[in-house]
Amino acid sequence: MEEYFGYADLVARKLAEAGVRPGDLIEVAREDGATFRGMLMPKDEFSAPGIVVIKLDNGYNVGVRLGPKATVRLLSRGELTSHPGEPVSLSETEVRPPQRKVMILGTGGTIASRVDYETGAVHPYMDAKELAASVPEMFRYASVDVQQVMAIFSEDMTPKTWETVADEVAKRLEAGYEGVVVAHGTDTMAYTAAALSFVFHRGLPGPVALVGAQRSSDRPSSDAAFNLTAAVLVASEAPFGEVTVVMHGETGDTYALAHRGTKVRKMHSSRRDAFQSINDVPLAKVWPYERKIEMLRDDFKGRSKDLEPENGFNERVALIKFYPGMTSEVIDLLVDRGYHGIVIEGTGFGHVANRLIPSLQRAVESGVPVVITTQTLFGRVNLNVYSTGRRMLQAGFIPAEDMLPETAFVKLSWVLARTRDMDEVRRLMLTNLTGEINPRHELKLFPRWYHDRL
Amino acid sequence: MEEYFGYADLVARKLAEAGVRPGDLIEVAREDGATFRGMLMPKDEFSAPGIVVIKLDNGYNVGVRLGPKATVRLLSRGELTSHPGEPVSLSETEVRPPQRKVMILGTGGTIASRVDYETGAVHPYMDAKELAASVPEMFRYASVDVQQVMAIFSEDMTPKTWETVADEVAKRLEAGYEGVVVAHGTDTMAYTAAALSFVFHRGLPGPVALVGAQRSSDRPSSDAAFNLTAAVLVASEAPFGEVTVVMHGETGDTYALAHRGTKVRKMHSSRRDAFQSINDVPLAKVWPYERKIEMLRDDFKGRSKDLEPENGFNERVALIKFYPGMTSEVIDLLVDRGYHGIVIEGTGFGHVANRLIPSLQRAVESGVPVVITTQTLFGRVNLNVYSTGRRMLQAGFIPAEDMLPETAFVKLSWVLARTRDMDEVRRLMLTNLTGEINPRHELKLFPRWYHDRL
Repeated sequence: MEEYFGYADLVARKLAEAGVRPGDLIEVAREDGATFRGMLMPKDEFSAPGIVVIKLDNGYNVGVRLGPKATVRLLSRGELTSHPGEPVSLSETEVRPPQRKVMILGTGGTIASRVDYETGAVHPYMDAKELAASVPEMFRYASVDVQQVMAIFSEDMTPKTWETVADEVAKRLEAGYEGVVVAHGTDTMAYTAAALSFVFHRGLPGPVALVGAQRSSDRPSSDAAFNLTAAVLVASEAPFGEVTVVMHGETGDTYALAHRGTKVRKMHSSRRDAFQSINDVPLAKVWPYERKIEMLRDDFKGRSKDLEPENGFNERVALIKFYPGMTSEVIDLLVDRGYHGIVIEGTGFGHVANRLIPSLQRAVESGVPVVITTQTLFGRVNLNVYSTGRRMLQAGFIPAEDMLPETAFVKLSWVLARTRDMDEVRRLMLTNLTGEINPRHELKLFPRWYHDRL
Repeated sequence: MEEYFGYADLVARKLAEAGVRPGDLIEVAREDGATFRGMLMPKDEFSAPGIVVIKLDNGYNVGVRLGPKATVRLLSRGELTSHPGEPVSLSETEVRPPQRKVMILGTGGTIASRVDYETGAVHPYMDAKELAASVPEMFRYASVDVQQVMAIFSEDMTPKTWETVADEVAKRLEAGYEGVVVAHGTDTMAYTAAALSFVFHRGLPGPVALVGAQRSSDRPSSDAAFNLTAAVLVASEAPFGEVTVVMHGETGDTYALAHRGTKVRKMHSSRRDAFQSINDVPLAKVWPYERKIEMLRDDFKGRSKDLEPENGFNERVALIKFYPGMTSEVIDLLVDRGYHGIVIEGTGFGHVANRLIPSLQRAVESGVPVVITTQTLFGRVNLNVYSTGRRMLQAGFIPAEDMLPETAFVKLSWVLARTRDMDEVRRLMLTNLTGEINPRHELKLFPRWYHDRL
């Protein structure tokens, strides 16, 4: 097979078979059923092999990976003003994107509020007029509506709050918004992102982008405008229907990252790039002012037609970090007080002291699932290597693979609102519902540390 | 001032004033009182400005930073066989190091044991003959004695075990060993390293190097030999008297790192380079097979003459991780059961939910100090920014700067074995005793994350 407008191999064959040329309006159906509609672009030097590049009708270029069963269909012939291989220029009508509608929901926190530093009172800031004045860039990407749905610090959020946020998000997506931005305090934003990920694990018609600010908007170093613009761009134009956290990717105002809601963690108390993906790569890199979204993975869920939220969290779940010398007092209390589930942050492969195992086993025998994660954060729980781990497996504890302790905690809370049957809890906890388990780790996923003189 | 045997500025002036030349035996006294005795080396291209390089009498080159008040003294004229500027060659008598004595204490864990995978029984492995056969390299650096002092998995260690290990270490240093290696399970090795750091915070006559293995010695990928050889090299030849964790610096068998015991954390469940310094650079980079130690910082404590251990830990201290929706039940239990101290892993700058503050305040009012750390691990607690934090300060909680939660837990356990006076506890927690607080963070201390396609 020869090259076909720069494309090679499978992609070239599929395009040739469909008889489509750059400039044509086409529809690409991926193997997983996601479909993309837009103008076929000539292959550019940046896209990976196996990818077809189309310009969506919002003006955004997306690379779609074609598997053997993917299909390409001609919708209508295009009228390119340039020759294939040359830069594509479009008439002015064509470049003006249809005005997509994005909803920003304010919940509180640094980004969505003005904090009175004297009294600590939180003043809603999410007034559309004020926003427009302070973050005008985001209106380039969508018609933006803003609504304050609550005004609390994120450290005060609870599983009940997650339910409210999920309801508000669902309502806006049902009303036809293409994406929803949730402005949130950064302290527990990753927990809420995981919670929304499980509620919407069956699919989303558009992105839900949680966003926050590490420095408040009244400070010159504030990251609020950059992050919010990136989040609106994601909500409006990203090709996925997933819950993400959109925050600075590094300290400068270069790119933001859209992290999968189940794999992200706040890793620094004050840096702008505090949010990082653990044990996985982010979904996408986002240049808010260049209107550019670069997908970093192909296994995302596309925007789905239907919305089937499964909302509801169990509030009687505890997250307990193990430490040397820990006694069984706290575990016993949780069981005696009728807690419904316990997530343990063990050491290394997930171990706890052998003397704690009987107490935790009593929890299991009382119908309280015990889920094991690791305080190393990176890597995977493995209870098969050492005798302590094997005793833990025999006692019926559930090893939560490479899930973050926080994500396992949120997931157990979500699972226990659906079922308290121990077998079903185990099955759900060990099923990868929405990217919370990465079955394969590459060496590159461990960050590079500074090992030199300062 | 002209150049003096390659040295410039302050260093050149001090060397010229002392009338010393490369090859001479000299004594350098740093501003902090640490003294180094050895042969003055010509400046080489690798050492930083402001550093004088001397060859210690064990054959190891060390760079000593000279401040304005440092002094240089000639001890005896050397007889270099080469001209200044050329590579230094020494007679055979001179390169043979005096045989330093290092003690390896086995405590259990993967490195120090043979684990029976069927029964989980731990068999002491630390028999000198077996060791010599499996890790012969380490005998190049010292006369090594080996003793098994306990045989437990590190997840089963407690503050009482830390006391035993500290006693055993002190005994060996008093008996004249130049350094002690503690072979330890990796799961809680960082906690024990912090514990020994506080016990020996007044100074050590030589390094205490904790070492472990992420893969057991019966596996071809075992890191036991590499790590143990690096630890013996550190114990024998490193210029500092500090407690360190010595483990692989990256995945290959290139260099190990000697991490300060209060700043190190196991950050991966299975990688060889799982141990990394948080919020600080390691003490040194170690090439075990090249017999090379490169100091990464100048602020280390030198080997001191005296040993004044302050041993003893309070077992009634709890480490509690905050999570959204957490109720006050666990806090109330700890206070009611007569716990002596509580360390909280808060969110972001160290926050907890506002509804938990009264319970924690009751702890403080009952004489139970509440110490605040952050679950972001990186960065510093700051309770002055938001109203939640200010309420926490008003309630009397102690913000533990940039201390790791695990280190703050160990420190509070150590402090509460010395005093239960609240003011004294606060003073000690906020005093940097042994590198646990880094007052200044550089951007480089946050690792670099992978933000591209795999």
